[in-house]
Amino acid sequence: MVEATRSPDVAILPRSAPYLEEAVEAGGGRVVDVSEASGLIWTRPSAVEELEHTLETHSRIGWVQLPSAGVEDQLPLIRSRRDLVFTNTKITYAPPVAEMALGLLIALFRDIDRYARETTWTKQSGRMLTGSEITIVGGGGIARALADLLAPFGCRITVVRRHDRPFAGAERVLTPAHLHEALRDADAVVLALPLLDDTTGILGADELAALPEGAFVVNVARGAHIDTGALLDSLRSGHLGGAGLDVTDPEPLPDGHPLWETPGVIITPHSANFAALSVPLLSAVITENVGRWAGDREMRAIVDPDLGY
Amino acid sequence: MVEATRSPDVAILPRSAPYLEEAVEAGGGRVVDVSEASGLIWTRPSAVEELEHTLETHSRIGWVQLPSAGVEDQLPLIRSRRDLVFTNTKITYAPPVAEMALGLLIALFRDIDRYARETTWTKQSGRMLTGSEITIVGGGGIARALADLLAPFGCRITVVRRHDRPFAGAERVLTPAHLHEALRDADAVVLALPLLDDTTGILGADELAALPEGAFVVNVARGAHIDTGALLDSLRSGHLGGAGLDVTDPEPLPDGHPLWETPGVIITPHSANFAALSVPLLSAVITENVGRWAGDREMRAIVDPDLGY
Repeated sequence: MVEATRSPDVAILPRSAPYLEEAVEAGGGRVVDVSEASGLIWTRPSAVEELEHTLETHSRIGWVQLPSAGVEDQLPLIRSRRDLVFTNTKITYAPPVAEMALGLLIALFRDIDRYARETTWTKQSGRMLTGSEITIVGGGGIARALADLLAPFGCRITVVRRHDRPFAGAERVLTPAHLHEALRDADAVVLALPLLDDTTGILGADELAALPEGAFVVNVARGAHIDTGALLDSLRSGHLGGAGLDVTDPEPLPDGHPLWETPGVIITPHSANFAALSVPLLSAVITENVGRWAGDREMRAIVDPDLGY
Repeated sequence: MVEATRSPDVAILPRSAPYLEEAVEAGGGRVVDVSEASGLIWTRPSAVEELEHTLETHSRIGWVQLPSAGVEDQLPLIRSRRDLVFTNTKITYAPPVAEMALGLLIALFRDIDRYARETTWTKQSGRMLTGSEITIVGGGGIARALADLLAPFGCRITVVRRHDRPFAGAERVLTPAHLHEALRDADAVVLALPLLDDTTGILGADELAALPEGAFVVNVARGAHIDTGALLDSLRSGHLGGAGLDVTDPEPLPDGHPLWETPGVIITPHSANFAALSVPLLSAVITENVGRWAGDREMRAIVDPDLGY
């Protein structure tokens, strides 16, 4: 019964909200009890066991819309349930995250973070983001959105991703095997990639040393992409010029952690994206995917179980 | 003797520098003593009397390149010497100033300034610059560069300037008589206009009240454009959401001034542009104008004595 599986009947769990119901209805869907649903909007990233149980006990569900872009916690479940379509929010998370990445870049280049802490008129300092060399590690939606925001700055952009196919707006595309080459001339490196086994600790002591003196690091991906100890060493030695960290390892960063007091470090509390910011964007993807699900068309932002994002 | 007046002989005063000499030579000019010069690169904005005296005693000089974009201090001299061509740096100052204006905007919208002062993991906050309504007061080079940087953000941009001719990237162009209309729906207003009699205090208590609650103010022009007392009142009452001030009134802002301690205020010490940042850009305009001067072509960035910029 294909029609039954791909009905517009969608459940919202563990906790619904009026804006989510409106988004489902705007896509031509009906919000129903989970026992009748063929699609599921899952609203809590951390509740993986609860999600697994829900899917086991409701076999009619064929599609799960997850509420985050990073799905490392849900990946074992996604890989064990290849009979289902999992979609995430990788396409909705890009605009707010890219905006924050650019904000951290300008703050670092122009010393806005330092000035924000001053209570006296200090010396002019900073340098231009315009015309600088920026390396973006990651070639997904956030890299795409960031490259678009950077376009008017006339930066030389290098993208590091698995495939070295051209990337609009980037002068160079390099594979991870050439990461050091991508870092060598970078005024700043931005991490915008999923957390996988082979991307954990992708910026370690060697990679930080490969960056030129005074370079900046921005991380809007996951804290574990960077070796925190090596980052602190590089900042303290004066090799790195600064770091803008929306994510940390550990996270939340505990009070008294040395990163809080290291000059040149801006920490934003995983606020590059959060629910209130992305409600309009999340609503838009739900509306679109409900329509595609009911219409038996290809879904947007499908998680590839093998790639893990 | 037209040839004598428009020779490529250029003096650099009060103080030369190798990069300035290189810029003159790159334009096909010769760096000479002021007694032989037909053009003058003037390097110190504040030394107006010295400039006036130099021009009085060296009648061969026909062109003066001033070192700043704002020329309010030199305006009486410019108006009294309409026989001379004065050029400023309005075209070179735009990229660094627009970059800072955008940095202050993102910092305000995304609470980067507040996070920069924290030493503990706090609640996620902020809102999106993307898709917001931005009013730029001023229609010159900085407004142009800022509108270009904002283009990928999909903002609704209103430009306020003397003439209501279309402005690329702006949905609306309004004249100063309609300033309140331009402020009514603005999520942020950016001041990027010259300081003249009729633009002094252009943002007073009434204009700040016209902005919607939570709006941001960014000033990359001159401190005296804003009534500082009214700004403080509006910030303290919670009406304004914050202010990014690269310029203040008074300036430098004295220690202990209440603006230093008002939440939501970022003060950068007139660092949207400064010599070290703009050397490459200043060099470029000197090179170009030396070539145009010697070639008897129209100069770039001519100061209009009547408009005052």
